[in-house]
Amino acid sequence: MADTLSGVGVSPGVGAGPALRLVRAVPEPPSGERHDGDVAAEAARAADALERTAEELAERGARAGGEAEEVLSAQALMARDPALADDVRRRVEEGTSAARAVFDAFTVYRDMLAAAGGYLAARVADLDDVRDRAVARLLGVPVPGVPESAEPFVLVADDLAPADTATLDPGRVLALVTAEGGPTSHTAILARALGLPAVVACPGARAVTDGTTLLVDGAGGTVTVDPAPELVERSRERAAARAAAVAASVGPGRTADGHPVPLLANIGGPKDVPAALENGAEGVGLYRTEFLFLDRADAPGHEEQVAAYRAVLEAFPGAKVVVRTLDAGADKPLAFLPPSAGEPNPALGERGVRMMRLFPEVLETQLAALAEAARDTAAELRVMAPMVTDEADAAWFAEAAAKAGIEGAGVMIEVPAAAIRAAHIAATAGFFSVGTNDLTQYTCAADREVGALGRFQDPWQPAVLDLVAMAAQAADAAGRECGVCGEAAADPVLACVLTGLGVTSLSMGAGALPAVRAALSRVTLQECRAAASAARAARDAEGAGRAARDHLPGLAELGF
Amino acid sequence: MADTLSGVGVSPGVGAGPALRLVRAVPEPPSGERHDGDVAAEAARAADALERTAEELAERGARAGGEAEEVLSAQALMARDPALADDVRRRVEEGTSAARAVFDAFTVYRDMLAAAGGYLAARVADLDDVRDRAVARLLGVPVPGVPESAEPFVLVADDLAPADTATLDPGRVLALVTAEGGPTSHTAILARALGLPAVVACPGARAVTDGTTLLVDGAGGTVTVDPAPELVERSRERAAARAAAVAASVGPGRTADGHPVPLLANIGGPKDVPAALENGAEGVGLYRTEFLFLDRADAPGHEEQVAAYRAVLEAFPGAKVVVRTLDAGADKPLAFLPPSAGEPNPALGERGVRMMRLFPEVLETQLAALAEAARDTAAELRVMAPMVTDEADAAWFAEAAAKAGIEGAGVMIEVPAAAIRAAHIAATAGFFSVGTNDLTQYTCAADREVGALGRFQDPWQPAVLDLVAMAAQAADAAGRECGVCGEAAADPVLACVLTGLGVTSLSMGAGALPAVRAALSRVTLQECRAAASAARAARDAEGAGRAARDHLPGLAELGF
Repeated sequence: MADTLSGVGVSPGVGAGPALRLVRAVPEPPSGERHDGDVAAEAARAADALERTAEELAERGARAGGEAEEVLSAQALMARDPALADDVRRRVEEGTSAARAVFDAFTVYRDMLAAAGGYLAARVADLDDVRDRAVARLLGVPVPGVPESAEPFVLVADDLAPADTATLDPGRVLALVTAEGGPTSHTAILARALGLPAVVACPGARAVTDGTTLLVDGAGGTVTVDPAPELVERSRERAAARAAAVAASVGPGRTADGHPVPLLANIGGPKDVPAALENGAEGVGLYRTEFLFLDRADAPGHEEQVAAYRAVLEAFPGAKVVVRTLDAGADKPLAFLPPSAGEPNPALGERGVRMMRLFPEVLETQLAALAEAARDTAAELRVMAPMVTDEADAAWFAEAAAKAGIEGAGVMIEVPAAAIRAAHIAATAGFFSVGTNDLTQYTCAADREVGALGRFQDPWQPAVLDLVAMAAQAADAAGRECGVCGEAAADPVLACVLTGLGVTSLSMGAGALPAVRAALSRVTLQECRAAASAARAARDAEGAGRAARDHLPGLAELGF
Repeated sequence: MADTLSGVGVSPGVGAGPALRLVRAVPEPPSGERHDGDVAAEAARAADALERTAEELAERGARAGGEAEEVLSAQALMARDPALADDVRRRVEEGTSAARAVFDAFTVYRDMLAAAGGYLAARVADLDDVRDRAVARLLGVPVPGVPESAEPFVLVADDLAPADTATLDPGRVLALVTAEGGPTSHTAILARALGLPAVVACPGARAVTDGTTLLVDGAGGTVTVDPAPELVERSRERAAARAAAVAASVGPGRTADGHPVPLLANIGGPKDVPAALENGAEGVGLYRTEFLFLDRADAPGHEEQVAAYRAVLEAFPGAKVVVRTLDAGADKPLAFLPPSAGEPNPALGERGVRMMRLFPEVLETQLAALAEAARDTAAELRVMAPMVTDEADAAWFAEAAAKAGIEGAGVMIEVPAAAIRAAHIAATAGFFSVGTNDLTQYTCAADREVGALGRFQDPWQPAVLDLVAMAAQAADAAGRECGVCGEAAADPVLACVLTGLGVTSLSMGAGALPAVRAALSRVTLQECRAAASAARAARDAEGAGRAARDHLPGLAELGF
């Protein structure tokens, strides 16, 4: 009989095929292991393994781009460190085997980091990864990472990190299943971006062995082990029917009874515009501008910024384009700003508008470029500041925007204090956009990057719903709009609940727009409100989702 | 005319005397600097500087104890790293001066950390500190740290770190003034613990030069530069009058109209019991148990734990002793638990009860020892779990406590979600204890350890007051007690506001008990409630404090 594993479905669709596990463990070469005497050959093997590891990391980085490239390039540098190479050679000359010499040499650095850290800094894991890759080459065992396979497969892992998935080939992955993680985990975001079915927080995944056939239902959150062929067939038909229904939904976002909920796209640069248009985005709810500033020695100049902003604004004549000003900080360092040294918790540090208050000229330049870019287009430009904590932050940003000729500047609501005191902030801010990912992270004090805390990284957490309701009510009382631009908006069921909480627009990765549009079209505003009340009355995230679904009968036929 | 600098007063009292600045900067030895040719002597000088630096750090650590010792011992290890010593010797042999050789050798490690980090990990600062100390010795310039002076002085700094103050001699420091920091900063906590007047978040402090006479008013939050002697005299008289009034207040905590507010002590081990008793603590509101677990290879055994708990319980017959079970995590790693590698934000990681859910046997042992210790004493033992986020956490902990025979287990309210959903948690938890330091940190998404975010690390932030009110109201509705055991309870004015919000007991460092007792005795419960409402109506922390004081006229005569 087929065994069914439960988890949390974070990206709808059905995928079935053989499981392949992400390889992580590399055996430790025996302590004191010696080589057979040919020092030159052994030293060359070690040097070659390090160099090939560096090349592979650099190449994967170049293919991946963005933040992943930054991580992978730093790792390539580690593998090419000359002091490390010297140390390895010396150990081989003293008779240690190449694999053990590499292992021991890395251990020196590792211990230094560990001693220096008090706790093991996040990047010790990166160093270990470089070591494991080099050692795996020397031992002739699989190099850690996404397995290579000619056959399409279901990727199974404890959790996925950006480095694991930087070069994932979506054409060969049928679905993702992880033991850890939550709806805002890297796995979930990646799966939705690639349109892959995914189930996370599925502890049973730990016991799955390579080659086992799995049926993954990314809407229901179930993984069936060795499913009957009929079940696979039925599931695929259901998924296809849903996909057809979703594809059939067109036009602006609105509930079945006509309550409008503009559906906007989250974009990270002009490259994301085509997908937004294809999926019928009614505008841009979150234009992240970090891509212009990262990975470069100097700040982008006025003209370069104007061009990048104009490319997006021109694509949306008559529509709203909400630009989030630069969200830099210790977790997204910029080469041309002094680093915020010594932040033990970068997520709680000088990020976003806090950083801009230290370097106002960077914001001034950006706002001036935005004003200039909007002058020649028919789009409705809006700007908003990240990491606003109190009214003083909102007022400072509004003043900076007004100076650049941009009125009605808004704020991200992602710090709990801002949601709690939304009534005061609404007096100053032109609009709200709730960033549910960070809001959830801070409200539950659970790092988005720590897979094991998936239970708390769930925007269905009733406490998070309470804060969204506070923000939406305060906005409504002040005559302001209150959108949501976090991952929560991309969940079709939660999108209905957010609408019921009083949220006035939803912005998401373009791929999620059709499903949310279809969901909204099957429910009434009254049902959304009842679902929101029921969800807030629940005692945990799972109960909130269940209670909401009970009040949204129209979604069942879509399989959400 | 005297110039007055404004800041935030975080520890009352008046101190006047010459300013001495914390020395931080050590000049960089010129790049490529050569020595005069005596390789052996130069190498010996370098080795000697490193060893003396290591000795000094180890000795300061031993004197300081606790967390500071951990940091300082790790630094001593860095200074004694054999690979580093080899590298320095090699550079000196190649002709580089000792100072530059040390500087360059550290740079290799530093760059490795920096490259590995993406952002500079917090401990890069510790490594730089070791380098600066060794280089300073070689250059014959002052070693960074608290200045040495035979004369009493006012210590002025941008901000104080634990390492700076580990061996501060309170007999020679008249007051503390820092440019950064907030009411929950290390400086503020230290000042209150030592009874030193202190003003933080005082940007004008940056311009103060050594030897300038300063008058520091730690209640008013002002620093007068070159004060007239009469002003110093008057301020001292006022401070003395307040100290006398405070000293005269005895007996259990209660408002002027007799509303009881038990005043309890926060303690970190049996060593803190005498001060608690001397200051009239009515029990222990927070017994931190980390001291038993840190800095050791194995977990403490049953008997050792029983003895440590009994030593405290026996000192409080008939009184409440609230024990917080082990609060370990990536920021407080334990040698006998596997480290949580890869937590980029330890404060948002697997801390407290989250960690215990991974290692339930550690909690079981602790609870069994507590139950055993209480069996022979007349104290009223209570236990509470740190970092509870939702009802499931509270229920899990209550079940573990009940299994050990301890009923009515409570929870810390320090995660915003727990405060927001306090009504649900109260169904399971026997009582609440609000940890305002962490609650403020998460609510405002502002790291307690980042001095520059002082504005947000203030429990007067109206959003934090809102959450305390939510917790207190939910507790009251469920017939539970709701205490506060964070730094907020130690602020006499805020203590009255917390009482007005519905908090039922206040726990603090023993040194703060008399002032809080005196404050409560001068106000009525009705005034406290009015002050609480006024504070919550304010738009920022400063406004909240001002509004509260307006409703607490009895405190003005105490100078609070």
